[in-house]
Amino acid sequence: MSADVEYLRGLLRAFPDYPKKGIVFLDIFPLLRNPVAFETLITHFVHRLTSHTIAQSPSKKIDVVVGLDARGFLLGPIIAMRLGAAFVPVRKRGKLPGETISAEYQKEYGVDVFEMQADAIQPGQTVVVVDDLVATGGSAKAAGELVSKLGGKVLEYLFIIELTFLKPSEKLDAPLYSIVKVDD
Amino acid sequence: MSADVEYLRGLLRAFPDYPKKGIVFLDIFPLLRNPVAFETLITHFVHRLTSHTIAQSPSKKIDVVVGLDARGFLLGPIIAMRLGAAFVPVRKRGKLPGETISAEYQKEYGVDVFEMQADAIQPGQTVVVVDDLVATGGSAKAAGELVSKLGGKVLEYLFIIELTFLKPSEKLDAPLYSIVKVDD
Repeated sequence: MSADVEYLRGLLRAFPDYPKKGIVFLDIFPLLRNPVAFETLITHFVHRLTSHTIAQSPSKKIDVVVGLDARGFLLGPIIAMRLGAAFVPVRKRGKLPGETISAEYQKEYGVDVFEMQADAIQPGQTVVVVDDLVATGGSAKAAGELVSKLGGKVLEYLFIIELTFLKPSEKLDAPLYSIVKVDD
Repeated sequence: MSADVEYLRGLLRAFPDYPKKGIVFLDIFPLLRNPVAFETLITHFVHRLTSHTIAQSPSKKIDVVVGLDARGFLLGPIIAMRLGAAFVPVRKRGKLPGETISAEYQKEYGVDVFEMQADAIQPGQTVVVVDDLVATGGSAKAAGELVSKLGGKVLEYLFIIELTFLKPSEKLDAPLYSIVKVDD
């Protein structure tokens, strides 16, 4: 583990049995309370994108950063600004005005629906999808489907925390990058 | 109206009769799709805070930026980072782990509850509260109550859009600053 990852991981706060018994919830908000840690987190993502991901891009740039409602909104706009890219939200059903497209994903109890504005991404644009945590990968997969429907190409999915034992990368159509991996 | 405000206002997209008849919804997402506009928006807020608000602060700095779930999350972290301040979220009930405090606010149909982590703000800290839009001011007032309960002091409430005809500033215990004012 690199020293910056060790630093960031050490600031996550663990809450056992939240939101229910047997789950250890990792709280990212201590990172956002600490301006040095938050800068380190954002710079870590931007360095990944500029040193690695952009090399895989057909246009050698990232056009759009997509952030998932609501905690992806904490990270996506600032990463987009650093890259000179657009920020586009994925929201829960009924929250975006104008023409939208939608994709379903499985939640623990039943199905939820994500939406994106239909003119938010242009055909051929390169995209990264950002959220705080990936578990089964269902919501990230739905976000990727929305990008594909509009003709965009997801280069990478980015997360602070990955629950590797749920094997989210097997669901996704592009590489998954996470800073902190949780194995059980 | 200053030229930067005119520029930003011109990029907001109006959707008549959304989410219901008689309401004109102003969409902020075109600003976030445009990296130059988003930079202008954030710099406008930061300039307001550094040239005006900080002068009113007992400590001559802003310690904490509070952002409201979910669209305040698009603006708050990046403003906090620019100021070297902490970012602290206000979330809907049941989304924050650990000890929390809560405040109720009136919605169109019934009452909703906001929460904040109980250790998020220290007594005496100076705070600004950020969201995309203020209408009646009910949710901003609830956020201000959470800050006060923890012993913080709100210096200013900041919004992109203010529905001035709903008189939100009359509800708030500190000055309200908005970039775009909607009169009817």
